[in-house]
Amino acid sequence: MFNIAILGFGTVGQGTYEVLTQNASIIEKRVGDRINIKYILDLRDFPDHPYGDRVVHDYSVILNDPEIDLVAEMMGGSHPAYDFSKAALMEGKHVVTSNKEVVANFGVELLQIARENGVCYLFEASVGGGIPIIRPMINDLAQNRIISVSGILNGTTNYILTQMSEFGADFSETLKDAQAKGYAEANPAADIEGTDAARKIAILASLAYGKMIPVSMVHTEGITKITTADIEAAKSLGCAIKLIGHTCEIDGRIFIAVTPRLVSERDPLHGVCGVFNGISVDTDMLGRAMFYGRGAGKLPTASAVVADIIDAAMNGESATAPCSITSADAECVYPFEEYVCEVVYRFTDGSLKKVTEREADAFTGEGVGAVSRLRML
Amino acid sequence: MFNIAILGFGTVGQGTYEVLTQNASIIEKRVGDRINIKYILDLRDFPDHPYGDRVVHDYSVILNDPEIDLVAEMMGGSHPAYDFSKAALMEGKHVVTSNKEVVANFGVELLQIARENGVCYLFEASVGGGIPIIRPMINDLAQNRIISVSGILNGTTNYILTQMSEFGADFSETLKDAQAKGYAEANPAADIEGTDAARKIAILASLAYGKMIPVSMVHTEGITKITTADIEAAKSLGCAIKLIGHTCEIDGRIFIAVTPRLVSERDPLHGVCGVFNGISVDTDMLGRAMFYGRGAGKLPTASAVVADIIDAAMNGESATAPCSITSADAECVYPFEEYVCEVVYRFTDGSLKKVTEREADAFTGEGVGAVSRLRML
Repeated sequence: MFNIAILGFGTVGQGTYEVLTQNASIIEKRVGDRINIKYILDLRDFPDHPYGDRVVHDYSVILNDPEIDLVAEMMGGSHPAYDFSKAALMEGKHVVTSNKEVVANFGVELLQIARENGVCYLFEASVGGGIPIIRPMINDLAQNRIISVSGILNGTTNYILTQMSEFGADFSETLKDAQAKGYAEANPAADIEGTDAARKIAILASLAYGKMIPVSMVHTEGITKITTADIEAAKSLGCAIKLIGHTCEIDGRIFIAVTPRLVSERDPLHGVCGVFNGISVDTDMLGRAMFYGRGAGKLPTASAVVADIIDAAMNGESATAPCSITSADAECVYPFEEYVCEVVYRFTDGSLKKVTEREADAFTGEGVGAVSRLRML
Repeated sequence: MFNIAILGFGTVGQGTYEVLTQNASIIEKRVGDRINIKYILDLRDFPDHPYGDRVVHDYSVILNDPEIDLVAEMMGGSHPAYDFSKAALMEGKHVVTSNKEVVANFGVELLQIARENGVCYLFEASVGGGIPIIRPMINDLAQNRIISVSGILNGTTNYILTQMSEFGADFSETLKDAQAKGYAEANPAADIEGTDAARKIAILASLAYGKMIPVSMVHTEGITKITTADIEAAKSLGCAIKLIGHTCEIDGRIFIAVTPRLVSERDPLHGVCGVFNGISVDTDMLGRAMFYGRGAGKLPTASAVVADIIDAAMNGESATAPCSITSADAECVYPFEEYVCEVVYRFTDGSLKKVTEREADAFTGEGVGAVSRLRML
C-alpha cells in the first residue's frame, strides 16, 4: 500500500480523489500496488464526503506519520504550500504539486531538497493542466537541444480571445461573459495580465535551459489592450491573436516573454481555441512537436497530479526528475528591448504594415498615427 | 559506458548515429553515463564513415559480446529483424526498435521474452516517428480510461491529401509529384493502401486496450479512391479529408479501422497538414489530448529511438513498459459492418446529404446515383 495525503481539498484536490477512486483498478494494475488516500488536509470539514473521516486540520499529523509516502500539494499560493512541501521532503516524503506559483518561485530549492533526501518533487500539473508536457520534455526530448518553446498556456485568455474573434465582442464584454460562465475568476488579473502564463513559461524554460528565471524577470504583457479591430486586422493577414509564452536562447542568454502574438493559420497553435492549451517545442533533431489538450479544470489537472503519484509510487527516488536546474540572475536573461521579430503596425485608417522590429523603431519616431503594434510569432 | 549495437545502417540507423554523436554531451548529462556505439550491423561496408571500422556483417559477433547492453533494431521488415531481436532479448540485451511491422506482428511475444529475461523491449519510434506518444500513453495517461484514439499516422498520404486540397490536382498526379520529391516510395502501396497506418493504430490499440489486433483484422481502406470532387465537397462542409486510424471500445469489443474521414475544422486534427502526423487520444479524466509532430524522417525518427536508448540506459529492466498485452482473436474485434457513424453522400449532381450509416444502408438500396460516401470522424 502506498499512502498519500492530499493537501487542499478544493477543485483539484477533489478531482484527484475522483481519479484515484474511479480508476483505482487500472491504477493498481499499472503500479502493482494500491494507492491509499490516508489523509486530506483542509481548513474545512467535509462531513458528507465519503472520505470525510480522513480530513485533518493539523499538518503535523501527516508529517509525523511514517506511513505517509507522498504528499500531493494542491493548496495554491506560496504559503504555506511551500513550507509544507519543504517539510514533507525533509521528512523523506515525495511531493507532487499542481502549484505553479510554488514551482516557479521555489522549484530550484525544492528539487535540491528532494534530491538530498532521496525523494522526488514532481510538478506535471503545474503547466498545461492535464497535458503531458513536463515528463515528455524531460524523458522524450532529452536527446534534443531545445531551440524554442511557444505556448498558449492560459485557458482563460485563450477563451476570451477566441470569443472576441468568433463573435466580435470587445474585451471587457467578453471578460464579463467568461466570468459568468466560470471560465474567468472574479479577480482575473493573474490571467488577463499574463502572470499565470509567465509562471508557466518560466517553468518550461527551466526544463529547456536549466535556469529558473524569476517571474519578475519575464517580460509580461496581457491581453487587456487587444481590440476587436486588432483581431480583424489579424484575420485579414491569415492570423489569430494568441497570448503566447515564448522562450529561446539568443547569444547564450535566455529570451523569455509573455506577449500577444499574431499566429499564422499555418501554425498548429492557430487551431488551439477556447479553453484549450497548446505547447509547441522546436528542437534540433525532432523538429517541431506540439502537445495539445485541456490546460485547466478539475479532472484534467487531477489526471496530471495522479500521473505524478503513479510515477513516484512506481519509481520512488528515480521518478522523472529534470537535470540540474539553477537559479537565474539578470545576466542570464536576454533583454526584451533587444529582441527583434516581425511586427505589424495598424494605422488609424485601418491599413497595415509589416516590418521588423528594428525598422519599426525608426518608423515609430515619425509619429505616423499607428494605433497598435502586434508581434508575429 | 553503455554499449549498443545498431542493426541496419540505413536512414534511421544513420540518424541514430547522428543524434548520439552530435548531442553526446546533453545525452551523457541526462544518463550519467556515456552511450557508445560499439557495432553497426549492415550487409554493406561504409569505408568512408567515421564509424566504418565498427561495421560488422556477422550478427553473432554482437550477440556473443557480453559488453553489448542494448541492440537498436532499424532494419525494417519482419525477418531477420524479429529473429535478431528475439535472440538479443534471450541473451539479456535490451532491444529498442523503429520497426512497426515487427512490433505489430511479434510485439506480444517479444515483450514477454523481454520480461522473462529482465530486459526491456521499447518501440517509441514505431508510431508517429519522432512524436512522443508511446511513453506518454503508458506513463502519463495510465490513470485514464482510453475512450478512443484517432490518428493521422502516415505522412505520405497526409502530404498527398494536403496537396490535392491546396492545388486541386488529382490523386495519381499528386502521387507522382510526392514520389519525385521523396515523400512517397517508388512502391507506395503500404502507404496509400493504409497498411502502414493499420500497423500503427494496432500498436496504439494494444496500449489502450491491452490486446494486439493482427493487422489482417484491421479494416483498412486507403486513399486511392479519393477524388478532387470529394475534397471540394468536404471543404464545402468545413471539413478536410484525412486518412484516420481509429480505435475505440464498443460493447466490450475493440473497434479498429483505417479509413478516409471527414475531419471538421473545429477538430485539432484538421490542422495536421503535409507530412506531419497528429494523434488524438480521448480519455475519461483528461478529456482529449493531441500529440503533433514529424511522423517520419531521419532525425525525427532517430530522436525517438534515442529516447528509448536513454530510457533503457537509465532505468534498465524498469524502463517504460506497457501493462500486459495479449494477442487478440477475432472475438475481440467489433465487426466493421456493425459500426455506425455519420456519413456524407455525394451525388452526381454535386449535392450532398449527411445521414447516419444505418440510414444510409436503406438509402443506398434505392440506387439514387451517389458517387461517393465519406465517413465523418
